[in-house]
Amino acid sequence: MATQPAPAATGMRVDEIDTPALIVELDAFEYNLRAMAEAAQAAGMRMRPNAKTHKCAEIAKRQVALGAVGVCCQKVAEAEAMVDGGIADVLITNEVVGAAKVRRIATLAKRATIGVCVDHPLQVDQLALAAAEAGAEIAVYVELDVGGNRCGVSAPKEAVALVRQISAHPALHFAGLQAYHGRAQHLREPDERARAVAHAQRAVNECLAAFVAAGIGCERITGAGTGTYMLESGSGVWNELQVGSYVFMDADYGRNRLAPAAIRFRHSLFVLATVMSVSDGRLVLDAGLKAYSVDSGLPQAPDAPGWQFARAADEHGVLTPASSAPPLPVEIGTKLRLIPGHCDPTVNLYDWLVAVRGGIVEAVWPVDGRGALS
Amino acid sequence: MATQPAPAATGMRVDEIDTPALIVELDAFEYNLRAMAEAAQAAGMRMRPNAKTHKCAEIAKRQVALGAVGVCCQKVAEAEAMVDGGIADVLITNEVVGAAKVRRIATLAKRATIGVCVDHPLQVDQLALAAAEAGAEIAVYVELDVGGNRCGVSAPKEAVALVRQISAHPALHFAGLQAYHGRAQHLREPDERARAVAHAQRAVNECLAAFVAAGIGCERITGAGTGTYMLESGSGVWNELQVGSYVFMDADYGRNRLAPAAIRFRHSLFVLATVMSVSDGRLVLDAGLKAYSVDSGLPQAPDAPGWQFARAADEHGVLTPASSAPPLPVEIGTKLRLIPGHCDPTVNLYDWLVAVRGGIVEAVWPVDGRGALS
Repeated sequence: MATQPAPAATGMRVDEIDTPALIVELDAFEYNLRAMAEAAQAAGMRMRPNAKTHKCAEIAKRQVALGAVGVCCQKVAEAEAMVDGGIADVLITNEVVGAAKVRRIATLAKRATIGVCVDHPLQVDQLALAAAEAGAEIAVYVELDVGGNRCGVSAPKEAVALVRQISAHPALHFAGLQAYHGRAQHLREPDERARAVAHAQRAVNECLAAFVAAGIGCERITGAGTGTYMLESGSGVWNELQVGSYVFMDADYGRNRLAPAAIRFRHSLFVLATVMSVSDGRLVLDAGLKAYSVDSGLPQAPDAPGWQFARAADEHGVLTPASSAPPLPVEIGTKLRLIPGHCDPTVNLYDWLVAVRGGIVEAVWPVDGRGALS
Repeated sequence: MATQPAPAATGMRVDEIDTPALIVELDAFEYNLRAMAEAAQAAGMRMRPNAKTHKCAEIAKRQVALGAVGVCCQKVAEAEAMVDGGIADVLITNEVVGAAKVRRIATLAKRATIGVCVDHPLQVDQLALAAAEAGAEIAVYVELDVGGNRCGVSAPKEAVALVRQISAHPALHFAGLQAYHGRAQHLREPDERARAVAHAQRAVNECLAAFVAAGIGCERITGAGTGTYMLESGSGVWNELQVGSYVFMDADYGRNRLAPAAIRFRHSLFVLATVMSVSDGRLVLDAGLKAYSVDSGLPQAPDAPGWQFARAADEHGVLTPASSAPPLPVEIGTKLRLIPGHCDPTVNLYDWLVAVRGGIVEAVWPVDGRGALS
């Protein structure tokens, strides 16, 4: 149960890294960080990247150094890991329920600027009590269901009522609207994503109109992801971006077709695996369901031309020929990079990110929020 | 990156456990342990349960106390965690490749009885070198591909050649055949599983005939899982069971139809989650893709009658009505148990197992092998 030993040390060659390991190719990673930071700046958008993707304070600090105001998290325990790691401003883009968890938010808000979302009066009451008891101030965002059909209020009048409730508590302040359309991120075609964000924008505008009618000011409209950030940036409505996956990308995001002007973020995250068994028509890798998440499909194997992922078991990945043409032979002991189907739940499986450049390990970063479920 | 704090303390009520948490209901768990131990004993089979399911030395020790000779593991790091936790006999039911990993096996073999599988001469050479250097003795099992189409040799003559190679090294000894049919475990119908194990049995018998012809003795035939253990037990061929999932069960194993005489193992493993948002026709839980593995389907929600799992995101589980009849109302803050689709990769997401009985926390066990990928 203790943290696993690091699979690499600075200065090692990539082929010396113990496997399975999660590696970050720094040239691609830094390109992604800079490209998104520049796009946000050019569009006049605040950047608040979602640290649920990387769970790594070293990466969050690099995002802040490139202009981010802080980060988002999904869980209180992630926010604690980020504040412990030196991040001064964290928005929990999620509802938090239960007296014990809400007390942790109040405790954290004594050490850093902390925001959290609500979509129900009960959540506001719990936050107000905890904040007052701790003598803390908590920024509260009302989450709007903008088409994700998950959390968030649907009717503008519910949002107005929540803002009034928040404003009645001196330890809370209404900080803005959480308007994130998660399901829009992975719609494959640019025009499908545009329609989804247009729908979200109508929902935001209706809510803002209700706020105006109620005399409520709303400074911040925060949302967007790697699949749609260009749309929110150009909307004139949103003013803060919560993009997360752009730092790493994954096979599923790689399947999105992009609008012509879109930035092509690069795959920087790979699972490094070793070929442990070879037979006629089959390669078996030492990385399976405990080494990558398959919720968005099997990994890709760019280092094994002519082979494709056929299936995964707990600790095995099986590759078979991609076509009737014989694939290039691969020997036992060969190390291959895999592009995981979905970056976020894959990162959560590892204690360490091995940062490499030019085939050499440049750093080993702890995944500070690994397993931070609560 | 540090281990997460335990979500519960002994004596707490279940509704006080912080969520998401992994809970083990001890009455069902102990029934499963006893039932399998008695079935193995009645069939004259050695028990070597696979600890890749639970990764928990506390559970392994309970299995040994009920007669198991030791445990299986899939990874060197898991075997290290089990030996550190007090288990004296561990078989790594997998090929292990690479000088550094193989040296760790040799080091471990100085502290405990350690076995490992091979399906290629290169693996034998690496093991022999490491064992000789460490002055250790390693038990080597030849893995036979009995229908899983994963690792293992297919031709009896390859097995014979490997045994001869193993026997040529004084630090290694040939310990038996690894004959596990992973894919047979989840075939839904009893007769499908019977056909698969009959196929495996023919493969084992052909190999044993080749051993006899070559003058090779083979003491141990080890394999079987929770889906097929009755078949291997009755075969007259296998003499050791590697069953793993029976301790916990999961939604996928629950979908297997059982032969009339089969033991009905009970669901003892649950993800405890909290309802964090409620809207018309939707419940949202605080447990998503980082709280359970969905490789074998979404979780079941036995505590929410009339609701069913609709989808999961990184940190959300969404339930919708199971039929057109209105489901029972569920309030924000309610804690629900979920049966995960697949137990093994779900356990790997947690640092702690919370053992409960009669609604009270009786113990909190570390998941010693959490993240033990290497």
